[in-house]
Amino acid sequence: MKIGKNQEIILGINSTETVINFRKEEVNTLVVLDSNSNQRVKKIIELATSKGIKIFYTGNKFFKNFKDINHQGIGIICKSKKEESELVLDKLLEKESLLLLILDHLTDPHNVGACLRSAAAANVDAVIVPKNRSCHLNPTVRKVSSGASELISFIVVTNLVRTLKKISSYGVEIVGADQMANKNYLETDLGLKVAFVIGSEDKGLKRLTAQNCNKLVKINMPGKIESLNASVSAGILLFEYLSRNNNAY
Amino acid sequence: MKIGKNQEIILGINSTETVINFRKEEVNTLVVLDSNSNQRVKKIIELATSKGIKIFYTGNKFFKNFKDINHQGIGIICKSKKEESELVLDKLLEKESLLLLILDHLTDPHNVGACLRSAAAANVDAVIVPKNRSCHLNPTVRKVSSGASELISFIVVTNLVRTLKKISSYGVEIVGADQMANKNYLETDLGLKVAFVIGSEDKGLKRLTAQNCNKLVKINMPGKIESLNASVSAGILLFEYLSRNNNAY
Repeated sequence: MKIGKNQEIILGINSTETVINFRKEEVNTLVVLDSNSNQRVKKIIELATSKGIKIFYTGNKFFKNFKDINHQGIGIICKSKKEESELVLDKLLEKESLLLLILDHLTDPHNVGACLRSAAAANVDAVIVPKNRSCHLNPTVRKVSSGASELISFIVVTNLVRTLKKISSYGVEIVGADQMANKNYLETDLGLKVAFVIGSEDKGLKRLTAQNCNKLVKINMPGKIESLNASVSAGILLFEYLSRNNNAY
Repeated sequence: MKIGKNQEIILGINSTETVINFRKEEVNTLVVLDSNSNQRVKKIIELATSKGIKIFYTGNKFFKNFKDINHQGIGIICKSKKEESELVLDKLLEKESLLLLILDHLTDPHNVGACLRSAAAANVDAVIVPKNRSCHLNPTVRKVSSGASELISFIVVTNLVRTLKKISSYGVEIVGADQMANKNYLETDLGLKVAFVIGSEDKGLKRLTAQNCNKLVKINMPGKIESLNASVSAGILLFEYLSRNNNAY
């Protein structure tokens, strides 16, 4: 089974199911480990069959190519999903309500993947990351995101500060998560157009990023450890936005 | 460098720092990779020195024993932190306000570790897991939890359903997270004594677990993917509880 030049393989049960459900027209072949007896895999085979998708059964040797990823003996070959350019952002900025998630130089693919999943559940319009010193879409991110990477616009920008200034000029409130901030997120007004910025776990927001936020908020934590996983911070802030804008559901 | 019978090694920058700060009296030796030039590691060495902790510099060979864990070239040997028995729960149940996190047969150490971290930030009184078919404290859980595992009571119970009944009999509201529930978490009353129950990612809450919850709530998700990582669901629910009980801060 060969993966073509403009194709990629998406691995794992959730991700495969998402691609079949939402990107069917870009699907080439469903690949299944021939000894796979998982019940959910069986259901995905039925789903693929009903949609006329080609199914290829193969041995361990094929999946050994992806041994670092928990592939669960299933994957789907489809058209490569590209990272998006800044042009996509220009269109989004015209919207009346807008929810963006900006990742300020996160480098751990597990964190980026988990952030994509929180973002997809919250229906954010796009996730934005800087081009350099930052983790982009890779097989681990895709797997950890449980299919979210296949749905969400992932925009890579050359200069994050310039992008923040542009976003702000469109009336989008840029809210940075910063445990050194004075205000708790619960006490902070949020408009309909919001971009949350999450910093890297070790270092938090970069100085210039923080300076270009309209507001900095902290998540009050009563425990001895005052730090959350990036995807949990993102989840808490995104769902707080949703709770205040019920019409966003 | 030998690790004694009743000792363990806690690996990684955050976890090591947490143990030094909060379990100093149980610390034996700080172990550092001799080529480690990380700035935060240097600060931890200073911290340990100021507290009179023994420091042992060693080569790659020692850390190769832990190659599956992102140890960051630092670890601390200390007294083993035990999982707690149900007796600890009995004492907690007498408290006037109580926040518990119950993990219903989670098996992925990354998820359990991340849940511990959310729980520690939210200052939960204890995390409760069933004895069988469930991930307990292991080196990966400890590392992923970023030190949270060293702070929080981790109670292993023999029979989860029996424990739920007991907790409920003390007036604690047992709130299960279930995407099939009718009510959104935002519309649900929460008392001062609450136990949130999070199911495994593949299967959600077990039938008997769900039956023994006082309330089932869902987290409304407007996106195409209606599932969150277990630690994100836990974080959203725990911080919703905190937002309603400001005196809990």
